[in-house]
Amino acid sequence: MTKGSETRQAVLEHAFALASQVGLDGLTIGRLAEDLSLSKSGLFGHFQSKEALQVQVLQHAADRFVDAVVRPALKSPRGEPRVRQLFERWLDWPRVVPQPGGCLFVAAATELDDKPGPARDLLVKLQRDWLEVIANAVRAAVAEGDFREGADPEQFAQDLYGIMLACHHASRLLRDPGAVKRARTGFEALVEAARRRKPRRP
Amino acid sequence: MTKGSETRQAVLEHAFALASQVGLDGLTIGRLAEDLSLSKSGLFGHFQSKEALQVQVLQHAADRFVDAVVRPALKSPRGEPRVRQLFERWLDWPRVVPQPGGCLFVAAATELDDKPGPARDLLVKLQRDWLEVIANAVRAAVAEGDFREGADPEQFAQDLYGIMLACHHASRLLRDPGAVKRARTGFEALVEAARRRKPRRP
Repeated sequence: MTKGSETRQAVLEHAFALASQVGLDGLTIGRLAEDLSLSKSGLFGHFQSKEALQVQVLQHAADRFVDAVVRPALKSPRGEPRVRQLFERWLDWPRVVPQPGGCLFVAAATELDDKPGPARDLLVKLQRDWLEVIANAVRAAVAEGDFREGADPEQFAQDLYGIMLACHHASRLLRDPGAVKRARTGFEALVEAARRRKPRRP
Repeated sequence: MTKGSETRQAVLEHAFALASQVGLDGLTIGRLAEDLSLSKSGLFGHFQSKEALQVQVLQHAADRFVDAVVRPALKSPRGEPRVRQLFERWLDWPRVVPQPGGCLFVAAATELDDKPGPARDLLVKLQRDWLEVIANAVRAAVAEGDFREGADPEQFAQDLYGIMLACHHASRLLRDPGAVKRARTGFEALVEAARRRKPRRP
């Protein structure tokens, strides 16, 4: 890595953690320059505008998510084990990749839903890709015979997203110590409902 | 109502709708004064500070939520019918009480989770109260024999919250036309799992 790209990575990593607390809109080149003792003009050279900075922070977060969650989970066997790995790694993601304010994507979703522009467009694409990864893992679980034929991959993906969002809400806003345990219970119920019914008389 | 309290209500109603789009932090007394052609000094007289304004907007939203969702649902019969009414009215709430940016509480939850202060404290109290209304409806459904003895009211409340959050995410951010239908399917699965198992041999 060149010096320039090292600086860029360090800024993005800091901006990513900060955005989880103050939101993407709370990121300013001035604040980043101050936090990292860099010159504002140098940072403008890297990121041009606040909007370009937001887009690059989202892309950086997505790269980290793929490395921490998607890629390792896709190494586990196709079928229910892979669905489980996706869930478990997703649950750990705000801790494994430090986001002191909780998952950046959750915060960005409500922040950007009414703000048309490149940051919103990228977030939508990233979220659709992620829901598709989950739906594909469910399709594979059906193909492997772990889940029943009628299991609906898009329904499963939205339901699983709900389990994670409710867990995030209960743990981050309400500081509810039972949040993660309930997320696991909800996941088990979702998997149980998707499983192939065992034949009554084998 | 006095003229002063009429003005206050009109400002709160406008601020509530606006906050659903721009967030509570995007509300400024200057912006409200401009939108409503009122004097800034007059508005300062009503709301004193931005923080006091945020608290009053949240309380106003909660009052509207009680009128539109909680009170009518509590008129339906105890048991599963009441749980259904709570869900259906909750699902309609951002349309019945206009919030052009989607549910204010969803936006406020990620906005305030890292911001200690009176607005966060009020939001936490309101959200806990609402989860408790759901949990109580589940307890009543158990008492009425609609739901089985082991049905966990807090689990049900968190799971139902997840269904709503995922629906909000899929419809507001992703503009997914299937979001509401999937929320209903998720709700039916949740109710089905909570129901009393029918005896095999009656």
